[in-house]
Amino acid sequence: MIEGSRTGTAVTSLTYGMVGGGEGALIGDVHRKAINFDTSARLVAGCFSRSFANTRRTGELLGLASDRLYKDYRAMAQAEARRPDTIDFVVIVTPNSTHFPIAKAFLEQGIHVVCDKPLVLSTAEAKELSALAKRKRLLFCVTYTYTGYPAVKQARALIADGELGDIRFVAAEYIQEWLATPAERAGNKQAEWRTDPKQSGLSNSVGDIGTHAENMVSYMTGLKIDSLCARMDTFVKGRRLDDNATIMLNFKGGAKGSIWVSQVAAGYDNGLRIRVVGSKGSLEWAQEDPNYIVVRKLDAPRQIISRGREPFAAEAARYNRVPAGHPEGYFEAFANVYRAFCEALSRVKAGEKLTAEQLEYPGLPDGAQGVLFIEKCVESSKAGATWVKFA
Amino acid sequence: MIEGSRTGTAVTSLTYGMVGGGEGALIGDVHRKAINFDTSARLVAGCFSRSFANTRRTGELLGLASDRLYKDYRAMAQAEARRPDTIDFVVIVTPNSTHFPIAKAFLEQGIHVVCDKPLVLSTAEAKELSALAKRKRLLFCVTYTYTGYPAVKQARALIADGELGDIRFVAAEYIQEWLATPAERAGNKQAEWRTDPKQSGLSNSVGDIGTHAENMVSYMTGLKIDSLCARMDTFVKGRRLDDNATIMLNFKGGAKGSIWVSQVAAGYDNGLRIRVVGSKGSLEWAQEDPNYIVVRKLDAPRQIISRGREPFAAEAARYNRVPAGHPEGYFEAFANVYRAFCEALSRVKAGEKLTAEQLEYPGLPDGAQGVLFIEKCVESSKAGATWVKFA
Amino acid sequence: MIEGSRTGTAVTSLTYGMVGGGEGALIGDVHRKAINFDTSARLVAGCFSRSFANTRRTGELLGLASDRLYKDYRAMAQAEARRPDTIDFVVIVTPNSTHFPIAKAFLEQGIHVVCDKPLVLSTAEAKELSALAKRKRLLFCVTYTYTGYPAVKQARALIADGELGDIRFVAAEYIQEWLATPAERAGNKQAEWRTDPKQSGLSNSVGDIGTHAENMVSYMTGLKIDSLCARMDTFVKGRRLDDNATIMLNFKGGAKGSIWVSQVAAGYDNGLRIRVVGSKGSLEWAQEDPNYIVVRKLDAPRQIISRGREPFAAEAARYNRVPAGHPEGYFEAFANVYRAFCEALSRVKAGEKLTAEQLEYPGLPDGAQGVLFIEKCVESSKAGATWVKFA
Amino acid sequence: MIEGSRTGTAVTSLTYGMVGGGEGALIGDVHRKAINFDTSARLVAGCFSRSFANTRRTGELLGLASDRLYKDYRAMAQAEARRPDTIDFVVIVTPNSTHFPIAKAFLEQGIHVVCDKPLVLSTAEAKELSALAKRKRLLFCVTYTYTGYPAVKQARALIADGELGDIRFVAAEYIQEWLATPAERAGNKQAEWRTDPKQSGLSNSVGDIGTHAENMVSYMTGLKIDSLCARMDTFVKGRRLDDNATIMLNFKGGAKGSIWVSQVAAGYDNGLRIRVVGSKGSLEWAQEDPNYIVVRKLDAPRQIISRGREPFAAEAARYNRVPAGHPEGYFEAFANVYRAFCEALSRVKAGEKLTAEQLEYPGLPDGAQGVLFIEKCVESSKAGATWVKFA
Repeated sequence: MIEGSRTGTAVTSLTYGMVGGGEGALIGDVHRKAINFDTSARLVAGCFSRSFANTRRTGELLGLASDRLYKDYRAMAQAEARRPDTIDFVVIVTPNSTHFPIAKAFLEQGIHVVCDKPLVLSTAEAKELSALAKRKRLLFCVTYTYTGYPAVKQARALIADGELGDIRFVAAEYIQEWLATPAERAGNKQAEWRTDPKQSGLSNSVGDIGTHAENMVSYMTGLKIDSLCARMDTFVKGRRLDDNATIMLNFKGGAKGSIWVSQVAAGYDNGLRIRVVGSKGSLEWAQEDPNYIVVRKLDAPRQIISRGREPFAAEAARYNRVPAGHPEGYFEAFANVYRAFCEALSRVKAGEKLTAEQLEYPGLPDGAQGVLFIEKCVESSKAGATWVKFA
Repeated sequence: MIEGSRTGTAVTSLTYGMVGGGEGALIGDVHRKAINFDTSARLVAGCFSRSFANTRRTGELLGLASDRLYKDYRAMAQAEARRPDTIDFVVIVTPNSTHFPIAKAFLEQGIHVVCDKPLVLSTAEAKELSALAKRKRLLFCVTYTYTGYPAVKQARALIADGELGDIRFVAAEYIQEWLATPAERAGNKQAEWRTDPKQSGLSNSVGDIGTHAENMVSYMTGLKIDSLCARMDTFVKGRRLDDNATIMLNFKGGAKGSIWVSQVAAGYDNGLRIRVVGSKGSLEWAQEDPNYIVVRKLDAPRQIISRGREPFAAEAARYNRVPAGHPEGYFEAFANVYRAFCEALSRVKAGEKLTAEQLEYPGLPDGAQGVLFIEKCVESSKAGATWVKFA
Repeated sequence: MIEGSRTGTAVTSLTYGMVGGGEGALIGDVHRKAINFDTSARLVAGCFSRSFANTRRTGELLGLASDRLYKDYRAMAQAEARRPDTIDFVVIVTPNSTHFPIAKAFLEQGIHVVCDKPLVLSTAEAKELSALAKRKRLLFCVTYTYTGYPAVKQARALIADGELGDIRFVAAEYIQEWLATPAERAGNKQAEWRTDPKQSGLSNSVGDIGTHAENMVSYMTGLKIDSLCARMDTFVKGRRLDDNATIMLNFKGGAKGSIWVSQVAAGYDNGLRIRVVGSKGSLEWAQEDPNYIVVRKLDAPRQIISRGREPFAAEAARYNRVPAGHPEGYFEAFANVYRAFCEALSRVKAGEKLTAEQLEYPGLPDGAQGVLFIEKCVESSKAGATWVKFA
Repeated sequence: MIEGSRTGTAVTSLTYGMVGGGEGALIGDVHRKAINFDTSARLVAGCFSRSFANTRRTGELLGLASDRLYKDYRAMAQAEARRPDTIDFVVIVTPNSTHFPIAKAFLEQGIHVVCDKPLVLSTAEAKELSALAKRKRLLFCVTYTYTGYPAVKQARALIADGELGDIRFVAAEYIQEWLATPAERAGNKQAEWRTDPKQSGLSNSVGDIGTHAENMVSYMTGLKIDSLCARMDTFVKGRRLDDNATIMLNFKGGAKGSIWVSQVAAGYDNGLRIRVVGSKGSLEWAQEDPNYIVVRKLDAPRQIISRGREPFAAEAARYNRVPAGHPEGYFEAFANVYRAFCEALSRVKAGEKLTAEQLEYPGLPDGAQGVLFIEKCVESSKAGATWVKFA
């Protein structure tokens, strides 16, 4: 049994600001929750929307001081840089096309940056940011989320240790259904900007999820692409960017690979899956079942490695939080109990009367029933496993 | 597609204290992280250990004011009750045998309570707490974590709606390996108190995990136990409490059921699984794959209902946070990216020089590579899916 | 890679007759196909139905000579015994209540017997057949099909080799949906005789599928039942026999177990599943995915052993036919029972003396134990689900 | 509940001969067992090996008359054609390169043919056989085994009924480990001829398993390949033919697809898997779990369709043998190909005229298409993995 690491919820002195992530946005709140998870940093400033009214509502909801809510990101970068309690870093969660100017503005002011992917719209922009960050000696994180899974880190460690022998083939796929219909013409905001070349750049599906697949292949195996052959498709009529792609990869050193990305894969939720074939064995990881790696060795039984069980490399294990068998998902369940309790408590404090039906958390009757259950089990068992009334 | 609810990380005015959860404890930190998830409340007071030194170290790490760290829970209850900024609720995460006096002390001071399970050691104690909470009009939550899973709430809604017809049989099991060896004699602290009748009460396995199974059956189906027949076993020699149990249940109204709990199930991580058989269909939920419910109807194909896809009842969907296919576990991955970034940033702020190898988060080179990947895919595809060099 | 054994379709000199299995019957044809699989024997005589018209039509379809089609089984036993080219063995595939007189008639004529399960209606009948077969030195096979799966044989070998340590708990279940509705009142012939005490005897679900589960536990683990406590239910109103049962088992030597059988498990096809928990590891086999065994060891990754891959014990591998990944199923399992029986019969005909250990098919002791199991379950259940000794 | 069809083990008047399949060969015995399964035909003649001693030993084992054992296939074709009791058909189970002359020899003598895949070595040969069979009005079956699975037939019916909407993408893969090492230099006979261009022709992996994948895509979806781009790899040093390939497909009408075949996929047994993505839903079938189809519809729960449960199309259900939950496997699939062929042959012998639609087994057009597929993959790969027209 490998215990979770317990860096816990220790207090932090780091602070951050956010650009994007106002009302109606999905990913901004995910970033905030992720930062909160271990109290990695504290949100103190924001420019959450092009609409300042939205920024103000969001800022108030999040408890920010009104003088740290900004009308535009440039003003924010400059004002924050001048404060003695300037933010340590900024989180950029806006559409792709704006990443470059925003990141540049903060870097120029000497502020570290965390930015959503894909990074920018062109290699020229990427090079400029890299040069700038290097010159200013600033940290820059691109949130390729899936590299954060402990099992992915374990897969990487296992491959690096030569457990699979020489890598021969990598088959990656990332398939979803969410653009199987013309959602951009049915009022879906996400779909609108994702399929708009002005906001997304050269590509929709390759940019949005293909880069995740490419990054995972690179992260897990360390292989470098030498050349590629890509077929990009647009299956939904009238769509302005690709919604499916098949890519053949030749890696330096002789390994081969393929990537299939699709946002028209009807019925699939979020099917990112990586298979790595080596001369001695193969490995498979699927994002929808992220706590496990399937390892197959030549003429040996298939192994299912579970996050939190041996063998698990130290560099992966240090990112565990709970023991094996508690799917990370366990925290969300736990948080839901507290959410229900705290919601009820806030209402009670505000003077509401709640009926038993309105309490969505387990209460004393549930606890008392558990105690009775223990007592009755012991009574029955001690009497030779005979029947006892439950009351 | 069902979107996640976004109560988000809104600021909260609720505060709480904690009894237990000091250095070396597992579950206290899990509670804190769960509360943090949605910033449901803020920790401001604590008595984290019988050792005040431990309480002080833990409190400091968590950023608590020193005047709200307490030597014992009684002092804490009294002192907090007298403060104008008294805690809204206390979280009790100590061994079973101390739940009763601690909960009683806080209730008597008019403070709401959240308490780990099993609630207390006897029905008499449970009744006393219930009467006290009722008299004082205080909320009391028992943290049966697994009821927090959205898919469990969906299962409950589906059964309540009669989708399975009349319930005939419920098969519950909760099997783990962690006490398959005499861990309590090998220095495992958890194992020591769990198998010690003085600290755990009448039972180990039925108390620790049997109550979870019992609670899940009750929560999902609403069935009431009428009588039971229990066989409790101790397979590890010298152990002082049970480590395995088989229980037959008769429910009021004619349904039947069984529960198998084991902490000697070698090779199983945390196998809580509930199957409910009705006259029209059956349902299955397993904690290690918590985002799905398997529904089987008479002579129809098996259905796998995914958290976040239709059909999903409103009362369950409101506990979602991210879309289908993002196993809750996604947040932990995301948080790990931020953990790595913030750790690096803290070290940089402290004057350390970090090499590229020491940065465990994805950075600009990864982002730049993604941009190049998009460009090259588009170039290849536009040329009729031909090969292009990746550089 | 383990290659399949290739005893192939070699010509055989063995011949057999069949009682039961005429038009409209399911299992008779399954037996014939299973025997055909490896041309284990050749069908030459039959009494396929109480209706001689049916017997004649079936016999013609199967290409039998008309002088070897019989009006009743007694006539058949006598006539066949007098022929120089008498059948080597008879296959009995009639309802339970007729197994005893038919088997007795053929044994008395010196003809070897293969009989469907459950063997007979009472322990008294089982003893009489055992004595008779012993006196006449005749082989007797009871077709507990599921013992024929190579993966089951591998599980047995693995347990016998001590891979799981001391066995502590066995959880068996066999759940189906086919009697979830009152099918016996809707024209289903199978359902009619299965739920009719005159044809099925003391029990429906325990007799039909409970004996399979009991036999599998016995076959895989070698454990002997010491006492049991059974609760038998009838969930469909008006049904005359049980359609669900929960049974707790105490084995000699201290191991414990449970069996759940159900024919009202709406949505389940044919869910026979065995889990064996030992002090060093656990094992799981499910009939609906019969080519694999899941092995879990203490604090090690889960292993999936595939029929036809290493490691696979020689005594199991010899029942493979095709390499790993080419699924073998129910017919192959059935054919393996016949292969073992016919191999033994050929050796006996060639004058060899075989010990009990050399007989790789289920025999009279297995059949007799199944009958005792039914009797004891009924005795326990009728006494209010109390404990009874198994002897 | 859908009952199995019970064409049973009815006596047959059809007879067959076999070329190949002597001692030491795997697939010949599989063919014989598959034919035996339903007593579709009776083996009466053979030329099992180039070694007549082997043919004699095999023939004796199989109970054949010595005058129907032949030194070479030409003698066999001529002798059998002259007999009044000539074989109805011949089964050819020799290495690829000999299929053409053998098939031709029997067709010329007016004998129906069943031949293993890939059919022949070139499109020219395929055309010659097609013309010859047509002129002689002879049936010709190519044993693409996997089309025999009832679940595959169900998938085909479901797609034909428009359940998935317009097909957009097909992802096929067939991955195995058996050539992950230089087995051809370690005494493996199969590996020797498979990797020998003289015996296998232009390709190893594309010819052996790529044609299966191509045939399954064609069978399930009815799509026609318009052009393809193939990259064929040889990962094991010194190997003379390909052992891995990635193929992009453009279908007529706008659908796209990909095929990955590998015989160096360490740890994989026999991983044939087909996914079909349509505008309304997707479908997945995997050969190693052949009794199930996974159907995903837009924003609906995933469905697992089980062979033998509703819904199951009549044309698929008629190939079931036992009820749902009783796994049917590779042999049953193989037997279904023979059942379809022998049923057609019996009807033809009885004077019926059958249209192409009435032939439920894979025939010469399927075999010819497989040969073209190999040729075009090799042409594309040799030109640097560029696009070639499929015609």
